Amino acid sequence: MLNKIKNALISVSDKSELSKLVKALSKFNINIISSGGTYNEIKKLGHECTELSYYTGFEEMLDGRVKTLHPKIHAGILHDRGNQKHQIEMEKNNFPSIDLIVVNFYPFQKIVLEKNDTKKIIENIDIGGPTLVRAAAKNFENVLIITSTKDYKSLIDEIEKNKGSSSSKYRKQMAAKAFALTGYYDAMISNWFNQELNIKFPERKLIFGRRIENLRYGENPHQNASYYLSDYNDRVSGLKQIHGKELSFNNYNDILYGLEFSESFNNNKNCTIIVKHASPCGVSINASQEKSFKNALASDPISAYGGIVISNYKMKEQVAKLINKIFIEVVLAKGFDPKSLAILKSKKNIRIIDTSKYLNKTNVNVKHFGNSFLMQDKNKILLNKNKIQYVTKKKPNKTQMQELEFAFTVCKFVKSNAIVITKDFSTIGIGGGQPSRLDSADIAIKKAKQFNRKKLKNAFVASDAFFPFADGVKNLIKSGVRTFIQPGGSIRDDEVIKTVNQAKGSMILSRIRHFNH
Amino acid sequence: MLNKIKNALISVSDKSELSKLVKALSKFNINIISSGGTYNEIKKLGHECTELSYYTGFEEMLDGRVKTLHPKIHAGILHDRGNQKHQIEMEKNNFPSIDLIVVNFYPFQKIVLEKNDTKKIIENIDIGGPTLVRAAAKNFENVLIITSTKDYKSLIDEIEKNKGSSSSKYRKQMAAKAFALTGYYDAMISNWFNQELNIKFPERKLIFGRRIENLRYGENPHQNASYYLSDYNDRVSGLKQIHGKELSFNNYNDILYGLEFSESFNNNKNCTIIVKHASPCGVSINASQEKSFKNALASDPISAYGGIVISNYKMKEQVAKLINKIFIEVVLAKGFDPKSLAILKSKKNIRIIDTSKYLNKTNVNVKHFGNSFLMQDKNKILLNKNKIQYVTKKKPNKTQMQELEFAFTVCKFVKSNAIVITKDFSTIGIGGGQPSRLDSADIAIKKAKQFNRKKLKNAFVASDAFFPFADGVKNLIKSGVRTFIQPGGSIRDDEVIKTVNQAKGSMILSRIRHFNH
Repeated sequence: MLNKIKNALISVSDKSELSKLVKALSKFNINIISSGGTYNEIKKLGHECTELSYYTGFEEMLDGRVKTLHPKIHAGILHDRGNQKHQIEMEKNNFPSIDLIVVNFYPFQKIVLEKNDTKKIIENIDIGGPTLVRAAAKNFENVLIITSTKDYKSLIDEIEKNKGSSSSKYRKQMAAKAFALTGYYDAMISNWFNQELNIKFPERKLIFGRRIENLRYGENPHQNASYYLSDYNDRVSGLKQIHGKELSFNNYNDILYGLEFSESFNNNKNCTIIVKHASPCGVSINASQEKSFKNALASDPISAYGGIVISNYKMKEQVAKLINKIFIEVVLAKGFDPKSLAILKSKKNIRIIDTSKYLNKTNVNVKHFGNSFLMQDKNKILLNKNKIQYVTKKKPNKTQMQELEFAFTVCKFVKSNAIVITKDFSTIGIGGGQPSRLDSADIAIKKAKQFNRKKLKNAFVASDAFFPFADGVKNLIKSGVRTFIQPGGSIRDDEVIKTVNQAKGSMILSRIRHFNH
Repeated sequence: MLNKIKNALISVSDKSELSKLVKALSKFNINIISSGGTYNEIKKLGHECTELSYYTGFEEMLDGRVKTLHPKIHAGILHDRGNQKHQIEMEKNNFPSIDLIVVNFYPFQKIVLEKNDTKKIIENIDIGGPTLVRAAAKNFENVLIITSTKDYKSLIDEIEKNKGSSSSKYRKQMAAKAFALTGYYDAMISNWFNQELNIKFPERKLIFGRRIENLRYGENPHQNASYYLSDYNDRVSGLKQIHGKELSFNNYNDILYGLEFSESFNNNKNCTIIVKHASPCGVSINASQEKSFKNALASDPISAYGGIVISNYKMKEQVAKLINKIFIEVVLAKGFDPKSLAILKSKKNIRIIDTSKYLNKTNVNVKHFGNSFLMQDKNKILLNKNKIQYVTKKKPNKTQMQELEFAFTVCKFVKSNAIVITKDFSTIGIGGGQPSRLDSADIAIKKAKQFNRKKLKNAFVASDAFFPFADGVKNLIKSGVRTFIQPGGSIRDDEVIKTVNQAKGSMILSRIRHFNH
């Protein structure tokens, strides 16, 4: 149904594009009601405009806190145009209809980002704006609500097409946008309050996301998909793609997983991680970038085909040359020197991403299941030095301890059950995603034998949870592994420790588990 | 800072516990302002109460749509008590302070669930209520906001303790709850609008959850965790635990994964799935419950230890007896007959869950990464009969086609790369979560040889994505597998097909991929 627009109320904090809008409204003799900065701007543009206080007969007060919260405004919006009783009440009060509301809010999110000033932040919680928006959106059968300057174009097209009226379909669409905005706005405010009060698991949790990109498809071509950002920032994910094809869903899935993984090594000089199917197929840290990459690749050079390289360093020429020799879908680094970039760009399709500005400070992890979710603290701990138990006759020395820490860190990011064999701060065998720990151990051993047989001698191993039996430990020892880290806690710990002692190996119990599913 | 409460505005749709509240307010001579049903209820309880229209001097209109949206109310809430200019304006207008707001909303969610009546649903979008709540919560430095009858007790304690005043700390806590509520309310409304308009990937997406349970800990003991439900319903997840220890995070993770998995077999008579570490270690469908369970267990009886059994049938005695012989953490079934229940209950700790009322109709899948998320359609398709290509000389017959469908369904729920070997509608080898498809194939073969060597002869296999090389196919054929389903699409499809032809096997290309990470 077409509704004629007679009166429009405009109250915007973003005053761009106002000129175009007002011009279009004037063309159809739509009376504009406004106040404050918006009123001044419209007058400056040379258009007629009714001042809000004049319209309501009530002088704005409390520095603008109470302005539109007035019956004449809200009855003007909320009355049912098809309801005779409503009509009579409107006439009795001499309240005209308001048929179009154009509002955008105080920029709460901007203030939160800019200033650590609680008072200022609270001042920027808009009350009048969301009320106008919600009232107009509720009554979308009669009223049109516009909440973004980005919709001015479609609004102008709409009223041009309908000669000063709005269509039912358009009003409902805009109402849907409006409630998404008010919900989003309060979700941001709610999360800010929870942060202020250090409430991590509130009674009501709101997760908000702004669509950054429609992806070509999801995990599979028959699934549609989009990528959303929950940050207060507009369109800033901190991932700067500088070359190559657009990112796919599976690329994003690997990248976002890999970046969190990579963050664990932020204190280490050069770390290279190669990811495939959201699992690592090679990880290495080294004083040399080149060696770090070479060792990561050597862990499983076959699986690395079509994988993703995540590096925590500014990439130099040597690594770029090595990457160019194989097929890699995405390369991520904290910057690229010009030579490395030139080399990488020689391949048209390879996606190159600068992660220098990537930041993900969130403290919670959420697992979704459609109509429910599990929320937990992010697993930010690796070891607690006070809890570690040295249980074998032999104790790992300082370097060995560092290598165990490396192995245990990788282990955290391999799907449970996880077994990670390392040498020289590089993975040589990764077994994960198995219902049985013994199977994961066997997969890791098989992998190490395939590509790094020699390195197995005196190698290191990390297990994300305790060994329930000695069998896996025996197989690992048989393959050459000698130094172990595992949480401990099995009723057969003694048997496991005895097995390591017999092989003159060493084992530490972390007493911290790292399941990850 | 303590704030004396002089005037309270009460407007509640849930009128329970009102008596206690009003009594406590009267004790400290707090004047109550109210209207409509709440006013009548308070008068009926024999308490003094100022009628809202009388208070504002403005007669409520539009069937109550415009009532509290009045400057006298909102200035009463919003003015800064420490600001002299505000004070002067309040005095000039003769507006008193309102220091306590008690509001709950029209039950939008209840109406959505009860009635498929758009008009009724929209009528139940509350405008005045959220405005009062938001105004009071913004001005929490001066005003106390109560949004739930559940908070009456703490409110009464608060004003008793402070002799008619409220403390700054309590006001801020309640403000945090208030914005969580208004955000949650609009998130529900927004999702309803999106559903109405068939918008699956909106510009702004809101995911809302009500905390159902604080869990003992998360995936690991050093992580805190909670379980949230996104349903409009209050505290109804459809999972009815009838026995055993409380559910852990990892239990929930396995259960919710397993239930979606199980739903895929809803058209099949008896399906048993055994899950461990969010991966299946055995799946079987059979006309007999008992055989279905036995075959699922036989797939990997070792990994099943400590696992979770998900059955899509009402469990009978025979299966319960078999479960009782091994260690299973959780048993889920669509009901239990009394004998099976008695048998299962003989173990004190085993968690028994009736899933008869479990429903998860959501269409999207969300993967979280802290400050961003990927959203996609749920993978609800298995095969498209028009797309299937019969590429080998031999074609699978009808029963073989059914078995391939079974294998492919399991494959959808195994982490990529996924290879699933089956016989007699039961898994015998599952390989997944590996960066290399060849490795997944070898894991599946190894598993089948370990527990079901004889069944490998003429077995079936499903692969979630194409075989990039013939190597994995060769290994599978060597082990006994003869009938294949895979999407196809490799540049070496011909080589792969030739390999199957040479072994007198058959292969179909689904042309539909099922990656799952």
